[in-house]
Amino acid sequence: MQNRKIRLGIVGATGYVGMELCRLALGHPNFELTALCSRSYAGQTFSSIYPAFRGILDLTLTEATPDDLAEKCDVVITALPHGVSAKIVPQLLETGLMVLDHSGDFRFHNVDIYEKTYKLTHPHPELLKQAVYGLPEWHREALKDAPLIANPGCYPTCTVMALAPLAAADLIDTSVPCIVNAVSGTSGAGRKSDPTYNLAEMGGNFKPYGVVGHRHTPEMTEQLRELTDQRIPLTFTPHLLPIGRGMLATIYVKPNDAGRQRCADGSLPALFKETYETEPFVRVLNEGDVPSIAAVAGTNFCDLAVTYDPSVDLIKLFSAIDNLGKGACAQAIQALNVRLGLPETAGLEHIALGL
Amino acid sequence: MQNRKIRLGIVGATGYVGMELCRLALGHPNFELTALCSRSYAGQTFSSIYPAFRGILDLTLTEATPDDLAEKCDVVITALPHGVSAKIVPQLLETGLMVLDHSGDFRFHNVDIYEKTYKLTHPHPELLKQAVYGLPEWHREALKDAPLIANPGCYPTCTVMALAPLAAADLIDTSVPCIVNAVSGTSGAGRKSDPTYNLAEMGGNFKPYGVVGHRHTPEMTEQLRELTDQRIPLTFTPHLLPIGRGMLATIYVKPNDAGRQRCADGSLPALFKETYETEPFVRVLNEGDVPSIAAVAGTNFCDLAVTYDPSVDLIKLFSAIDNLGKGACAQAIQALNVRLGLPETAGLEHIALGL
Amino acid sequence: MQNRKIRLGIVGATGYVGMELCRLALGHPNFELTALCSRSYAGQTFSSIYPAFRGILDLTLTEATPDDLAEKCDVVITALPHGVSAKIVPQLLETGLMVLDHSGDFRFHNVDIYEKTYKLTHPHPELLKQAVYGLPEWHREALKDAPLIANPGCYPTCTVMALAPLAAADLIDTSVPCIVNAVSGTSGAGRKSDPTYNLAEMGGNFKPYGVVGHRHTPEMTEQLRELTDQRIPLTFTPHLLPIGRGMLATIYVKPNDAGRQRCADGSLPALFKETYETEPFVRVLNEGDVPSIAAVAGTNFCDLAVTYDPSVDLIKLFSAIDNLGKGACAQAIQALNVRLGLPETAGLEHIALGL
Amino acid sequence: MQNRKIRLGIVGATGYVGMELCRLALGHPNFELTALCSRSYAGQTFSSIYPAFRGILDLTLTEATPDDLAEKCDVVITALPHGVSAKIVPQLLETGLMVLDHSGDFRFHNVDIYEKTYKLTHPHPELLKQAVYGLPEWHREALKDAPLIANPGCYPTCTVMALAPLAAADLIDTSVPCIVNAVSGTSGAGRKSDPTYNLAEMGGNFKPYGVVGHRHTPEMTEQLRELTDQRIPLTFTPHLLPIGRGMLATIYVKPNDAGRQRCADGSLPALFKETYETEPFVRVLNEGDVPSIAAVAGTNFCDLAVTYDPSVDLIKLFSAIDNLGKGACAQAIQALNVRLGLPETAGLEHIALGL
Repeated sequence: MQNRKIRLGIVGATGYVGMELCRLALGHPNFELTALCSRSYAGQTFSSIYPAFRGILDLTLTEATPDDLAEKCDVVITALPHGVSAKIVPQLLETGLMVLDHSGDFRFHNVDIYEKTYKLTHPHPELLKQAVYGLPEWHREALKDAPLIANPGCYPTCTVMALAPLAAADLIDTSVPCIVNAVSGTSGAGRKSDPTYNLAEMGGNFKPYGVVGHRHTPEMTEQLRELTDQRIPLTFTPHLLPIGRGMLATIYVKPNDAGRQRCADGSLPALFKETYETEPFVRVLNEGDVPSIAAVAGTNFCDLAVTYDPSVDLIKLFSAIDNLGKGACAQAIQALNVRLGLPETAGLEHIALGL
Repeated sequence: MQNRKIRLGIVGATGYVGMELCRLALGHPNFELTALCSRSYAGQTFSSIYPAFRGILDLTLTEATPDDLAEKCDVVITALPHGVSAKIVPQLLETGLMVLDHSGDFRFHNVDIYEKTYKLTHPHPELLKQAVYGLPEWHREALKDAPLIANPGCYPTCTVMALAPLAAADLIDTSVPCIVNAVSGTSGAGRKSDPTYNLAEMGGNFKPYGVVGHRHTPEMTEQLRELTDQRIPLTFTPHLLPIGRGMLATIYVKPNDAGRQRCADGSLPALFKETYETEPFVRVLNEGDVPSIAAVAGTNFCDLAVTYDPSVDLIKLFSAIDNLGKGACAQAIQALNVRLGLPETAGLEHIALGL
Repeated sequence: MQNRKIRLGIVGATGYVGMELCRLALGHPNFELTALCSRSYAGQTFSSIYPAFRGILDLTLTEATPDDLAEKCDVVITALPHGVSAKIVPQLLETGLMVLDHSGDFRFHNVDIYEKTYKLTHPHPELLKQAVYGLPEWHREALKDAPLIANPGCYPTCTVMALAPLAAADLIDTSVPCIVNAVSGTSGAGRKSDPTYNLAEMGGNFKPYGVVGHRHTPEMTEQLRELTDQRIPLTFTPHLLPIGRGMLATIYVKPNDAGRQRCADGSLPALFKETYETEPFVRVLNEGDVPSIAAVAGTNFCDLAVTYDPSVDLIKLFSAIDNLGKGACAQAIQALNVRLGLPETAGLEHIALGL
Repeated sequence: MQNRKIRLGIVGATGYVGMELCRLALGHPNFELTALCSRSYAGQTFSSIYPAFRGILDLTLTEATPDDLAEKCDVVITALPHGVSAKIVPQLLETGLMVLDHSGDFRFHNVDIYEKTYKLTHPHPELLKQAVYGLPEWHREALKDAPLIANPGCYPTCTVMALAPLAAADLIDTSVPCIVNAVSGTSGAGRKSDPTYNLAEMGGNFKPYGVVGHRHTPEMTEQLRELTDQRIPLTFTPHLLPIGRGMLATIYVKPNDAGRQRCADGSLPALFKETYETEPFVRVLNEGDVPSIAAVAGTNFCDLAVTYDPSVDLIKLFSAIDNLGKGACAQAIQALNVRLGLPETAGLEHIALGL
């Protein structure tokens, strides 16, 4: 597998996730882009839509058919709306293709939670048991032979990376809800034709949205439930930032007695450093430092900081990622690296532009 | 007319020009908004589209009919695409309404130039002779009893304000083309549902567009022709800025002998200061100062600077406006103030936010 | 007092607060700017620092002396760092001037809390009892004859406006800390010469700061304590936004039994609407709507929304202001309007630019 | 040299140019950063100033001494102010180090032009003859054994890349000045502690600066003179953009008869395509396409387009680069690749983030 390139196809290639996947695949030593599919733009070249790729990726977009993809590709990444993926992914799997899906359609093991969350009937609930949630830091072993990878949501990634060390060490008072207050760049909404995302309307703006019952809430809860015996109640409030890329979650957690002990003796940062010690894409900051979006934009890093406010007995967690990086595409490549037995950092050694 | 409010209707009220007109009309001591028309949003409230107006302008949008407008309004401003205005404005005029139009449909006296520029047959060429170009600094007298006001384009305003003093004083070498290099915030494109205007794609971006043969070029040329005996050849290159509002033109002019004399004796800035001495909305800067968009955004000001580069014998002019202010809506109010015999600065005494 | 203008002086006129005060004073029917003081820029004109004011406010900056100000002004606004105000304000008061101060030096009644918060010894603790906290919605009566007005902090304004209705109606479970997660534009840091605020480093960035023990926390707690019998525990986390102006707080509150009842019967929004029914600058949004910074930037509005997440039994409050508007300068003018017996909205009827 | 890493030192490592050099060197297969020098920040770690480099480049900054650098490095890049470089570079060269300098101190062959432009006496004019201007597309051969590389200025790079094909083919009417109207992100000003570069003041702003006699003008003229027999008169007007990175020049050129012929027969784009056919970092766009900053930010690309406006007989050229990429650091790495016999694209295969 080191000798020849892995042939990669992307379905839904002209959205922002598709675009970023192309950027990453082109810089990856082991991937070769062999199919870019788009219903709306079939027949046009990729670079005519994204001029940054002129002379680099002038491939013509095609309509996706499973047989065609099976012939041209070894691996297919689907970047499609939920509901659409649920129909197409099974067809791709049937041809024997390895598939990583970006939608919410395969992120839940429990079909009831999926159907309640997405208000859809899942056409292939049997696949939910086989799909592996593509967060390598917490599901690395299962990913190694996953038949189907369900790429995590951006907000759940940002949140779970911060909460998991506390949950796994059983330091959270689960009688008190965790509060996840998060912000995202507008690329998270996708390539929308909607003037409310126009530079003129969103530049200089900031606003909450989906303030109760956002779909990513049960995804966070389910992921945390797998790491601890208890259900951690959680509320999540997303906000839109006047930037293209980047996400930051500020999370408030009530410690239980064991947690409070670690807060008191100052060993919480050490817990995070130990948990993620060998992880190439997690940077636990020193006390007094805080993450920033500029330090992670364009990368697969998750920057984490933890502090304790004794006046109210609350742990504050800060987690920063690029919503298109660790929150979507770079994480997808990381998961595929694991799945394919490649070095986990292959093609992912970017440093943020900084400015 | 000082005793009661002038009833104002806006047709095309939900575009950016419509929105800014509402903002200005609400702060004007003599106007009362009595009709807001929109085909796409009829039945919705204005503030549901523009939340800045919540509790201030909750009027319901309606479909425009001439009779309805004639009953509810004294003055109507049309903010419609070219071609559409040409059909509706004559109907409004027939009811006896005073009309100011924002499109290009009534800006030319010569129907041939209009039809060549807009590639349309004008349905009412007779109106072209009656319409007055709404640039008060240069057409104030004609505006006072104009039956129809054609609001100038944003780029022509920015350009003509800078070039007119030189043209009127016959200081330009008309054998050499003037070069107008201009930039505009994205609101100039209107409230488009097009992802290329998304914050994600335009934030941090800058690019030229319409680089040869932009429609505003003949409008500039025609306006300048009225101020001098000769045709001034001119090329115009617009660029898109990663901001919502604001426009700046950098203009290169070859002086004739008389012009070169004024460059040599340093009296060019004085010419501009004298030309615009009594104008409330033109600020000619001192030598060494340059205009900036931040100093004019949100206002009706046109900030001008002039300098001379002796190494190449070229005059450089800098002109900054808000494309929605002096470039569209504030200028429209200024023209209506003149037309209605109101103080010309009424409702227009804004200072730029600065930050 | 309606017949002649009130002569206004600003000490610390070249900071962002000073600049915005000038903008507002110039648009106010009753104020006349008679003294602009700045230690660093004395001798320069105001408009040489802020070109938006060219031709509008070309006053020369001077060094402030109490006698000079007493002669030239009726009212003085001090926009100075804490510690500096504490020394100068008493001297100004002694001359008989009416004073509004923007620093934290006179916001606490209890000198111990001030000294602990600001780590300074207060030179004039006796003034703390006389100073009135300049939040008109909650201290209007006291403001009417206040000898000294302490302008509220931006974050406390944004937070207290949202929490006060719940606190005053005793609907908060005070055994659970309120969580205040807030974001601010960079103008909140003042006119700093620090590259970390450069466009190059902050554009496209977002980050928390002062994450434990920010000075505004006790100011919030003290203000809420005055409205209810109990101390409401509270943690506050500020973040820096990549915009110049604007602030939004997202606040999480545990209701007590009475509060939960109002959440259950859906009458929480009504409580907010009733509380602020007659307030000209508070807009309580309808259910389903959320505030945005773009809707309040450049204005004195505070836009509020309230919702309830039954899954975790938490009230979520959203409060948006302009940190330089209701968060500083416009609020200062509002308080002075109250103090001087002027219409409370005089000079403050701005609508946000929207774009 | 392929076997071991080339040891690289950077003097002036904490400016924006230094930062970007670090980012590029870390991603380069043949470089190893062995010395980062900074007078102001000596003793601190690089990543404490640029958090994007946490865990990646935690090297401690030191004060630069030639002996120390000679011991630790094979190659040194100086990113220092002009005047300072002129003193330090000769000391570095004396130790036998290979040096690339980012200042203007070694860009001119003619000391008189340097001294007139920079208003300094050059302490080592003899080096001006030896230094090679580091624009590989036009000086590749000379670079291969250059004792000292003078890295081009950002504006001259952007301009010369566009004008050189016309100049080299002798298609310019040199009796008419070329007009270079250019815009740059604020990182071009360096890491300034000056509030006029603050996000609050520059976000949403745009303004010209240095409008007559900018230092980069003679650099452009001298470079073009080397490619053709005639002096091409030229005026240059830079403007500041509200973004961190990126530069775009719009250039107006009068063709001579031969040039006009190529304009008439539509073969101008072909000339550009042929000229740069084998260049890995120059993308000549198809007719109708225009460059944009978003397509080149973060890369070493120079995107070029050419069009002709027959109405005024002028060629319009558009050239886009990243001022820190092809305009500074990436170009420096490209020149070093040439100098060191490495593949010219080594470490430079970035694709713009696109959003």
